[in-house]
This record gives sequence, structure tokens and C-alpha cells, in this order.
Amino acid sequence: MDEKQMKAAMQEYIDAFNRVDVDGIVNLYADDATVEDPVGSPPKVGKAAIAEFYQMAIKTGAKLSLAAPIRGSHGNSAAMAFDVQLNMPEGSAVIRVIDVMTFNEAGKFSSMRAYWGQGDMELLGTKK
Amino acid sequence: MDEKQMKAAMQEYIDAFNRVDVDGIVNLYADDATVEDPVGSPPKVGKAAIAEFYQMAIKTGAKLSLAAPIRGSHGNSAAMAFDVQLNMPEGSAVIRVIDVMTFNEAGKFSSMRAYWGQGDMELLGTKK
Repeated sequence: MDEKQMKAAMQEYIDAFNRVDVDGIVNLYADDATVEDPVGSPPKVGKAAIAEFYQMAIKTGAKLSLAAPIRGSHGNSAAMAFDVQLNMPEGSAVIRVIDVMTFNEAGKFSSMRAYWGQGDMELLGTKK
Repeated sequence: MDEKQMKAAMQEYIDAFNRVDVDGIVNLYADDATVEDPVGSPPKVGKAAIAEFYQMAIKTGAKLSLAAPIRGSHGNSAAMAFDVQLNMPEGSAVIRVIDVMTFNEAGKFSSMRAYWGQGDMELLGTKK
């Protein structure tokens, strides 16, 4: 995998999420891909489970913004730090996440792992 | 592993590196730990190989600074985006990295993987 292609796919993931394009996200994944979000939870396996996961995630109205430039590697993986902006009934919140993707030879994500814990969620303001 | 303990160990890694404390870094690792830096290169295995790696890395005069807050997880791992500042004979440079550490039950790093590729190195200025 070419580093630039991997980074372009990572950026497209952010962009597709923000334009509420579940098909666009799912299309970045291999058929037999796994999604472990958060790391430490049971992985979602295969495109149907992954599509369901993103339909729910996108329905929250969450928006993603990179916290630092996307990193490549000398192998078939890349990583990025980003913030998830959430507007919930209780107020606005941010979840700070690092995603690590591995790629198959077709340039699709074969796995995604999202590193975030309870301490990475922060309530930014409450509605009155 | 407690999320706060994992993040404290990640922060101590940055701090030990910046105070040129190889023993302090190596002490964060388990005896049988692995270091894959960059991801895609052959892993260093065990404390002796890891100590040798950091002696060389620290000798460059590199300094580390977090690019975003350290992320935890719901499992035994944590991740952080940081920049490596380098002053080389040719000028100053930055390498943009994301490290992922897994922890053993004693709270030591059992593995470290550093995500960065050729495209994550940038020459910032050249000496005259």
C-alpha cells in the first residue's frame, strides 16, 4: 500500500462521516473487515454489522475533526487522532479518539481499532 | 489496567525521553516487550534490544511533544499522537508519530507500535 493512498482513504473516512454518507464509509471497508470501537469491546465483523454500526453512530449527529495530521507507516497501516463533536440533549461533548486502520491489497480497510476510554469523553457545556 | 495509570505511563515515556533518561524509558517496558518502530519494520524484542534502540534514538537529541491529549481505551491499551523535533546537520525536522502501547497486568508496556511513514517526516529549515 502506498502511504498517500492510505492517508487519502483515512481523510475520506472523516469526510464521508461528516457528510452523513454511510455508504461512503462502508465502501472504504473490505467485505470481511473488523471494527473494534472502542478497543476492548467485541469487534463488529463484516460489512452488514459495520454498516449498522455507522448508521447508529451517524444518527447521533456527531462530526469528526482531525486533531493532528494523519500518520502513515512503513507497512499496511495508518493512524489518526481526531475529535468527535457531539450535541446531546444534555449539552455538547467531545470524545477524543485515535483510529488505527490496516489495509488489504485492494486498498480497503481490513480492520479499524478506535482507542478511546471513559476519560476521553468531556462534557463541554450543558443546555439550559 | 486503569485508564489513568496507562495515560500516566504514556506521559512518563514522553518526559523520560525529553530528560534523556534511557533507564527511565526502559523501566516502563516489560522484560519480554516488543517495539515496532516504525510499524512495518522488524520488531525489537526484549529489554536489551529496546535499551539499545532508545540509546540511539535519544543520542540524536530528538525531543517529543504531544500533538493532542493521550487516548485510553476500554481494554489494556492506549495511544498518543506526538511530534518528534530533530536538529540534524542539514537543519531541523519534525516526524509526526502515533504510538500505540499495550500493557501487561503489572502496568508495564508489553508492546509499542509507532505509526509513521516517509511522508510524516518534514524538513522545517536548513542551516546556512
